[in-house]
Amino acid sequence: MKKLLYGAAYYDEYMPYDRVEKDMEMMEKAGMNVIRIAESTWSTWEKEEGKFDFTSLHRMLDAAKRHHISVIVGTPTYAIPSWLCDKADDMLALTHGGPGIYGHRQNMDITNPIYLKYAERMIRKLMEEVKDEPHVIGFQLDNETKAYDTCGPRAQAMFVERLKEKYPDIEAFNHEFGLDYWSNRVDDWAHFPDIRGTINGSLAAEYAAFQRDLVTEFLGWQEAIVKEYAREDQFITQNFDYDWDERTGGLGLQPEVDQFAAAKHVSIAGCDIYHPNAQDLTGAEITTLGNISRGLKKDNYLVLETEAQGNLGWLPYPGQLRLCAYSHVANGANMVEYWHWHSIHNAIESYWKGVLSHDLQENETYRECAIVGNEWKRIGAKLVNLKKKNKVAVVADARSNTGLIQFPMETRDGHGYNRVLRWICDSLHRLNVEFDVIPAREEELGRYQVVILPALYSATESFLNAINDYVSKGGNLIATFKSGFADEHLKIYADVQPHIIHRALGISYDQFTFPKEVGVTYKGKRGEASEWMEMVSTEGAHVLSAYDHSVWKKYAAATVHTYGKGHAMYLASYFSTAVLEEMLCDFLRAIEWNEPEKIQVVANYPVVVKQGINDEGNHIVYLLNYSNQEQYVKLPDYEGIELLTEAKVQPGDDICVKPWDLCVLCYEEA
Amino acid sequence: MKKLLYGAAYYDEYMPYDRVEKDMEMMEKAGMNVIRIAESTWSTWEKEEGKFDFTSLHRMLDAAKRHHISVIVGTPTYAIPSWLCDKADDMLALTHGGPGIYGHRQNMDITNPIYLKYAERMIRKLMEEVKDEPHVIGFQLDNETKAYDTCGPRAQAMFVERLKEKYPDIEAFNHEFGLDYWSNRVDDWAHFPDIRGTINGSLAAEYAAFQRDLVTEFLGWQEAIVKEYAREDQFITQNFDYDWDERTGGLGLQPEVDQFAAAKHVSIAGCDIYHPNAQDLTGAEITTLGNISRGLKKDNYLVLETEAQGNLGWLPYPGQLRLCAYSHVANGANMVEYWHWHSIHNAIESYWKGVLSHDLQENETYRECAIVGNEWKRIGAKLVNLKKKNKVAVVADARSNTGLIQFPMETRDGHGYNRVLRWICDSLHRLNVEFDVIPAREEELGRYQVVILPALYSATESFLNAINDYVSKGGNLIATFKSGFADEHLKIYADVQPHIIHRALGISYDQFTFPKEVGVTYKGKRGEASEWMEMVSTEGAHVLSAYDHSVWKKYAAATVHTYGKGHAMYLASYFSTAVLEEMLCDFLRAIEWNEPEKIQVVANYPVVVKQGINDEGNHIVYLLNYSNQEQYVKLPDYEGIELLTEAKVQPGDDICVKPWDLCVLCYEEA
Amino acid sequence: MKKLLYGAAYYDEYMPYDRVEKDMEMMEKAGMNVIRIAESTWSTWEKEEGKFDFTSLHRMLDAAKRHHISVIVGTPTYAIPSWLCDKADDMLALTHGGPGIYGHRQNMDITNPIYLKYAERMIRKLMEEVKDEPHVIGFQLDNETKAYDTCGPRAQAMFVERLKEKYPDIEAFNHEFGLDYWSNRVDDWAHFPDIRGTINGSLAAEYAAFQRDLVTEFLGWQEAIVKEYAREDQFITQNFDYDWDERTGGLGLQPEVDQFAAAKHVSIAGCDIYHPNAQDLTGAEITTLGNISRGLKKDNYLVLETEAQGNLGWLPYPGQLRLCAYSHVANGANMVEYWHWHSIHNAIESYWKGVLSHDLQENETYRECAIVGNEWKRIGAKLVNLKKKNKVAVVADARSNTGLIQFPMETRDGHGYNRVLRWICDSLHRLNVEFDVIPAREEELGRYQVVILPALYSATESFLNAINDYVSKGGNLIATFKSGFADEHLKIYADVQPHIIHRALGISYDQFTFPKEVGVTYKGKRGEASEWMEMVSTEGAHVLSAYDHSVWKKYAAATVHTYGKGHAMYLASYFSTAVLEEMLCDFLRAIEWNEPEKIQVVANYPVVVKQGINDEGNHIVYLLNYSNQEQYVKLPDYEGIELLTEAKVQPGDDICVKPWDLCVLCYEEA
Repeated sequence: MKKLLYGAAYYDEYMPYDRVEKDMEMMEKAGMNVIRIAESTWSTWEKEEGKFDFTSLHRMLDAAKRHHISVIVGTPTYAIPSWLCDKADDMLALTHGGPGIYGHRQNMDITNPIYLKYAERMIRKLMEEVKDEPHVIGFQLDNETKAYDTCGPRAQAMFVERLKEKYPDIEAFNHEFGLDYWSNRVDDWAHFPDIRGTINGSLAAEYAAFQRDLVTEFLGWQEAIVKEYAREDQFITQNFDYDWDERTGGLGLQPEVDQFAAAKHVSIAGCDIYHPNAQDLTGAEITTLGNISRGLKKDNYLVLETEAQGNLGWLPYPGQLRLCAYSHVANGANMVEYWHWHSIHNAIESYWKGVLSHDLQENETYRECAIVGNEWKRIGAKLVNLKKKNKVAVVADARSNTGLIQFPMETRDGHGYNRVLRWICDSLHRLNVEFDVIPAREEELGRYQVVILPALYSATESFLNAINDYVSKGGNLIATFKSGFADEHLKIYADVQPHIIHRALGISYDQFTFPKEVGVTYKGKRGEASEWMEMVSTEGAHVLSAYDHSVWKKYAAATVHTYGKGHAMYLASYFSTAVLEEMLCDFLRAIEWNEPEKIQVVANYPVVVKQGINDEGNHIVYLLNYSNQEQYVKLPDYEGIELLTEAKVQPGDDICVKPWDLCVLCYEEA
Repeated sequence: MKKLLYGAAYYDEYMPYDRVEKDMEMMEKAGMNVIRIAESTWSTWEKEEGKFDFTSLHRMLDAAKRHHISVIVGTPTYAIPSWLCDKADDMLALTHGGPGIYGHRQNMDITNPIYLKYAERMIRKLMEEVKDEPHVIGFQLDNETKAYDTCGPRAQAMFVERLKEKYPDIEAFNHEFGLDYWSNRVDDWAHFPDIRGTINGSLAAEYAAFQRDLVTEFLGWQEAIVKEYAREDQFITQNFDYDWDERTGGLGLQPEVDQFAAAKHVSIAGCDIYHPNAQDLTGAEITTLGNISRGLKKDNYLVLETEAQGNLGWLPYPGQLRLCAYSHVANGANMVEYWHWHSIHNAIESYWKGVLSHDLQENETYRECAIVGNEWKRIGAKLVNLKKKNKVAVVADARSNTGLIQFPMETRDGHGYNRVLRWICDSLHRLNVEFDVIPAREEELGRYQVVILPALYSATESFLNAINDYVSKGGNLIATFKSGFADEHLKIYADVQPHIIHRALGISYDQFTFPKEVGVTYKGKRGEASEWMEMVSTEGAHVLSAYDHSVWKKYAAATVHTYGKGHAMYLASYFSTAVLEEMLCDFLRAIEWNEPEKIQVVANYPVVVKQGINDEGNHIVYLLNYSNQEQYVKLPDYEGIELLTEAKVQPGDDICVKPWDLCVLCYEEA
Repeated sequence: MKKLLYGAAYYDEYMPYDRVEKDMEMMEKAGMNVIRIAESTWSTWEKEEGKFDFTSLHRMLDAAKRHHISVIVGTPTYAIPSWLCDKADDMLALTHGGPGIYGHRQNMDITNPIYLKYAERMIRKLMEEVKDEPHVIGFQLDNETKAYDTCGPRAQAMFVERLKEKYPDIEAFNHEFGLDYWSNRVDDWAHFPDIRGTINGSLAAEYAAFQRDLVTEFLGWQEAIVKEYAREDQFITQNFDYDWDERTGGLGLQPEVDQFAAAKHVSIAGCDIYHPNAQDLTGAEITTLGNISRGLKKDNYLVLETEAQGNLGWLPYPGQLRLCAYSHVANGANMVEYWHWHSIHNAIESYWKGVLSHDLQENETYRECAIVGNEWKRIGAKLVNLKKKNKVAVVADARSNTGLIQFPMETRDGHGYNRVLRWICDSLHRLNVEFDVIPAREEELGRYQVVILPALYSATESFLNAINDYVSKGGNLIATFKSGFADEHLKIYADVQPHIIHRALGISYDQFTFPKEVGVTYKGKRGEASEWMEMVSTEGAHVLSAYDHSVWKKYAAATVHTYGKGHAMYLASYFSTAVLEEMLCDFLRAIEWNEPEKIQVVANYPVVVKQGINDEGNHIVYLLNYSNQEQYVKLPDYEGIELLTEAKVQPGDDICVKPWDLCVLCYEEA
């Protein structure tokens, strides 16, 4: 990337009247330089079967060109025209909820060959229209792709074929999946029962993994088509989205996609990151979800969607939109693109508001965009391509996510895994410990001083052994409750828990319960245990905190252990964040965690510090104030420049960061 | 009407043993003079296909005649016999919830020609039996008629035909409904997708409007049949019911029926009004729902159903049943009929209790009925046909109701529109401002000094222009948030909000959010904002209250504006009632609201004052005490009579209204 | 029984590796002497149609034999193999929720002849394998059998046939069920509508009774088969389970089975009893549910399942597992068997933990089992076959249970009946009044000094007359609200309430409501009324407490009445337990309730006293401490032995019962 990209999804198709020239002019004036188009409106491009009409497409492309705006073109395959739906009885996915009904997006069966045939033609037609446009800088494959819980006969047959290959001996299959239970044995692949009825969590999880693989295959199929047309200078991306919380938006790892696997089919990772604003803005989603995206290709990423005004209740306070835009970039994003430019006048997302309100005029949000856009025109070249070298890694794992969906903790909303992930990641965010997110692969471990396993419920023995090895050689491990409990098929390990890593951790347990009125106290801070508590006994480890409870006090809530050259902390229960942060701090201090390649800044949340190296080799340090109070931060021991004001900053001075505002420090050397 | 009607729905068919003579005797003794019969029991009248048996019907008619009781006969078409259900596979409506199953009432497909054929025969047979009975005073068409969410192929085909006629150009249709969104375009009417899947709020709303029109047509069809038999002196009515709250009963405007349109097929409006009792009785439902009914024909109306003992938890305190009976009449009702005479011994409504309990003996409720009935025999002629001339009108609109169902506020129960309607109407009730309820029709406006628009979300431009015109000529407007936001197809207006009427209001806004810890303070009273807040800027208006919030304080929560000769108040958020009432009072004072044709009474809630002119031209003034404390009210400046005690009352005296009791004042002139 | 049985359900089939020898060795070491096998795993025994493989079965039998462990063999018919499911389209029950899907247990149609044919062959094959094993001591028919809400065409046809027989005159049927209501009449049995749609509570209840009868017939059918093989010394049992509360486990009478009727097909009653532990353990479930089981055959019973570690949150505190084991035996159980021996490594019940955790090693739970098992080896012969002669009986009734499901109180979870049952039974438990549970049969009454009717909603006239007769002859009655309200078809009685027994009770009412801020005060204790309140007037009874409410104070919340030689107390509302216990105490004192055949012990909850006569004619008295505090109890006036310590105890001494611990006193004479 040569510059930061800043823009919005744009839909000429949705406009109540012809606006495209006016809109592009407004964007340009606001310093915006990119739009994403076309991903939602197959029926606009192919109004009837085989009758293509790209009037609106070219209108957008032409206007964008006139206003120096780059374009990302999305393949419009995630929402099908009504005429296509009529082509097959099984065009829509049969799901656990039964057959689908036309109207919604993202409900077709992505294994349907008729769908694929028409989708391919649509993609090819579109690519032909746009491929030679110089300002088309990249392509987005489909959008927020999933398998949409397809459970139709074809998909189930594919699943059974896969099992057959994996288990030539059906007895071995029955044994690994424990199918004697409740008389569920499968003795003939030909009579495999409808997966939708299963009460076997292992089988359900295997099907979920199969559905995730369908997504990877589907994206690979699209990638191959798009690559036939794409120029060298055009990127291919996908809009990966996250597990969703109705109240707060993006929550954590998407359970329906193996994003680490699927990312091989894109040249740059893309994502959408939605989060609360106003009094609820903390920056935690930008950090955690952004770190997942940065981890997919181990590189900068594109925020393909984030809110401008967003959902009701998300309207940002003045300053917050700009603070968030910088937070994305500070976290390694090379683009911030709003969903969407204009608020829509009909249909289900009319109250998910864009940059412009329904009146399509300049408003407070637009004016704040314009500040960002014009600042980035000025200083964006110093901010783009920010590289990070973090020493802390958090392991995020799709199978463990499924594990806690199949066997939920008391947080019975199916989000248990991500609640634990966020418990850890949000604490790191507030402690100003920047971290990477990595998959559960052995080769990832060596690069980090600290590896954290939040509820790594499902893990292979080889990975668990690698963890032990990592610690014994000097690595530092933090593992939470429910880690290492089951194998890759959610079969619970039948020996000492946590399986294998109990050695690195120096603890074990064989019982657990739901905590009622159980406290966890550490250094005078008392928190409540909730959701889960394991009855941990030490085998060499030091107890950081025993449960504060008349009966359960003999068990440990948190421990540390020295194992070989490394250290390992175990968190046996989900307890209050304040206590967790205290323990994390002490652990990092004890292992002499340090990042000599980074600029040292002492600051506490609500000031969030993010940094990295830019293309010129400078250290860029962001001080982001997530509060409505002024915050003072002592500057690092170097001379540098505050880029927004272009003022020189002196070592050791105090700098004031205004409410919901930020400073961007640039140091030539550290 | 010559007299007040007082009675109950009666079901000889349901009786565990022959009771009809005893029951009519008890009714007569209690002063009851009307029953409603026959509307629920088609299978009793036509036990087998074509075999009619009216034994029970004549038993009721004969006994009623002997005891001087008038009869309203309902056509029994809202619950079909099981044998009829078997006549067609699509006899029951296919709905958003799927196919129906026999057993419940109100689930047939009212567009089914076989249903209509059998229903017509049934109606004709019944009419022949009863038409010549002198004490049959009127007919009820069906009961609480709806379209029962019919979405079968036939109904959907009718809907598409209607669209075709409305939109000869399918492109215009696609544009107005915004169907490019999510690839939902319809390019061939022949391939119109199943409406049940749509995510397009405009399309869903159009279908809801179509379903409401089916109701109007169905009632018209029945009216035509019944009119062939009805005598001049017999009225035709329908039991219109209201949007329903599981906890409190009748809530507000019925979203499934356009009652203002449907009312053309009846000669007198009828309704059911259910409400809480005991500690929760306020009279607000009797006022608001009754005012809707009075508005349908701009005339007196019939309360065809209200509770005697009612649902569990609704058992009235002593005095409340009588207080409510008078409240209905004070509001313009000419009949109060309980649902129902006796509590039912089998089936789903056994705990919806009637006047009599299951033991079928005199009980407290019966004894209180007898007080009412005998009082009305004495003074009813002075109370019947009460005419009101109100200066305040509240606009109630079916399409706006649908609008807030399709795009709900945080009150996510689908009742958002009626919550706002009740927010306004209940405040007027407590302020003793009597009001009419009118549809959103231009010709209605001129008659009123004040017109109120609660969340008139969906409005035509012509109506909004008429509102501006009304104000500029001296009318006074009160509009709430979400008014004038979308057109008649729920397409959001793409210019300054609120569309068009922002001129009369002297305000505008382009952003809104969900309020968290936002206050609205007015004259020292502080309330919480909830559900919704618009970021209102004034353009000529005076700010009554800015939001009490560190960031949003620059926006107005409530404003007033002088526009031409009139005034306009805007309420930009849903806030505490105490604050609203203060603002309403001040607005009325400021515009010098007055009703010189009425008797001036100064009284505060819990005393509710209702008044009107009777057949003799007297002013009848009710003082209704909705509390368990005695209330003292200073009497108006006229000599008159308290009708219950027949005592003379002197100007300026204090009169005591006992707990859950009332006074009825009669003044010859004012 | 010669000895107490102590063990666990055992599943060699589920083991991740060959464990059976190790497991039996561990059991034997822990003093365990029984396992239950085979009831869940038809697909293990008949892997393919007609191919039987009993390897695993014999492995279990052989290992058990080697370790002196008795075996109960369950017929594996409650969970069918997938291949069997494919044999018929209607193999799974069509229910109110629609068609089933394979995977879950307990969802087949037990009226399906193909199912029955294959089940019979399976049972016979299994019986042939095990019948001659000397250590197979008994058989369990199926498991937790229900009709699984079968509503398929075959079942419905059977139901209609039954109605036809019962009602040769269809008019009588229509009348009794009140089918004129909402036009629901059935005029031709051939056109009986789908029962699943009915809104007629009487009809729904009749179908529920029919489904219960299907269970009884099904168990009779299995009994006949098993009897062909069973030896004289082998018992036949069934695992009866209870109405289920998601949070607390076993709640009360099972609504889907008429256990009193079904018990005729077993030689000894069996049951599962699940309950909370830790801070929530009270012993109430062990008492109430155990008393139901003891009542089925009026004899000792088997606890076929109870939790070891159980569900998350049920992990017992140290001591609780042992306390509960003794509590079962003290209540009349002759066996305590855990579900299950080992925690399962795959599938839906993996977190319903057994004695062993997933690591299959000795743990705290196992060690506590070993204490119990070895104590019972020592003293079990004195504890087994404990006989009780109680003077208090609580009537439990399946039709009344259904009645409160069809017409729920505000406890709208379908458990209303059992909430009232538990309100009574838990109070007796805490008051140390041991009681029997009996069905609503006239011949049961005479044996008791006190008979209690908790919400006996549905009752025949003959039973109600028998109640009056019982009281008049000197019996003592306690009845709660909603008793005697409806007949056996839930048709509400159409005269004075409570029907017939109002005479014995000396009260009547004809109205009721939901109490809001209504108190019930008795002897200075004030409780809140909730759920329900009847407006009771006395007709000879003495008012114990009038409602504490400004309006409703004229009605009684509780009354007592002398009727003939007996006394009758009525409880007109559901109020706080503390008030109820006070009233129960006073009632028992007033009627001079005494049990001269028992040992008199003065102790208050949390000490629970249970006693009976053992095989040697000794009085065994348990002092069970359900608290985490030491409790001191004054010993009875006899010399005896404390069996656990083998210490002699002296009359009048204080004995200390440790937290969650117990004493077992043995007296040769009383």
